[in-house]
Amino acid sequence: MSDCIFCKIIRKEIPATVVFEDDDVLVFMDIGPIVKGHALVTPKKHYDPITETPDAIVAKLHLTAKRVAAAQMNAFGADGVNIMQNNGAAAGQEVEHIHVHVIPRFSTDGHHWNWNAKKYDDFSEMNKLAEDLRKHL
Amino acid sequence: MSDCIFCKIIRKEIPATVVFEDDDVLVFMDIGPIVKGHALVTPKKHYDPITETPDAIVAKLHLTAKRVAAAQMNAFGADGVNIMQNNGAAAGQEVEHIHVHVIPRFSTDGHHWNWNAKKYDDFSEMNKLAEDLRKHL
Repeated sequence: MSDCIFCKIIRKEIPATVVFEDDDVLVFMDIGPIVKGHALVTPKKHYDPITETPDAIVAKLHLTAKRVAAAQMNAFGADGVNIMQNNGAAAGQEVEHIHVHVIPRFSTDGHHWNWNAKKYDDFSEMNKLAEDLRKHL
Repeated sequence: MSDCIFCKIIRKEIPATVVFEDDDVLVFMDIGPIVKGHALVTPKKHYDPITETPDAIVAKLHLTAKRVAAAQMNAFGADGVNIMQNNGAAAGQEVEHIHVHVIPRFSTDGHHWNWNAKKYDDFSEMNKLAEDLRKHL
C-alpha cells in the first residue's frame, strides 16, 4: 500500500536495519525496542490483520520468528524471548501491516509485562464464552 | 511430562474448558484471562521452548491461533486480538510447555500493555546487534 510505512521499508523508500530477507518476509530491527535486539518479522506483501493473512504467510512469519528467537538466544545469550503479534489498535497495533515482534529477554532486563489477569465471576461465565467460541471455530 | 500441568490437562487428569482439539493441538480457556475470552493453544505433545518445537507444530499452533482470533472477533465482536508466545521465565512464561495466548481485545477493555520502548544510544549500537543476529540466522 502506497502510504504504509512497512511497505515503504520493503520497497527501500525508507531505511531500516535489515537482518534477513527472502521472497516472502523481511526481518528488521525495531528502532523503539522493548529490549535492545528486538526485531520485527513482516511479509513483503501487505496483509492485515492475521485473520486476513493467508495461512502460508502466517506459518512463514512464525517459522521465521522461531529462527530469529534462536539467533537472539545464540547471538545475545538471551534467557528468553517474547513473540507477539498484535491485531488492531485496541490490541496496541501501531502499523497496520501484519508483523511479529521478537523480543530477546534477559533476567536482568527490567521489563515486566503488566500481566493483569482477571477472574471470571463463575465457571458458567467462562463456559458461555467457550461455547460461543466453539460455534465460530 | 508427568509433572507438567498442561500435559495433565491434555491427559484429562486436570479439568479444563476445552474449546477445540484435534490430533495435534488443544485449545482451552485461560482461567486467569487478561481479557475475558482469553484462550490458550498448546500442542498435545510436550515441547518447549519454541526453538525446540518442530516447525510443523509451530505452524499448526499459529494457524490454530489465527482461527481462534477469527472466532473471538466473530463470537465476541472483539475489536482486536493479541497473539503472544512467551519463552522462558525471563519472558514471563509460567508453564514450561509451549503455548500461544490468544487474547480478545476491545477498545473499552481497560488493558494497555506497558510497551516501554527504549532508545538505542546510536545507530551503531543497533547495527552491531543486527550484525550479530545475521551471523546466527
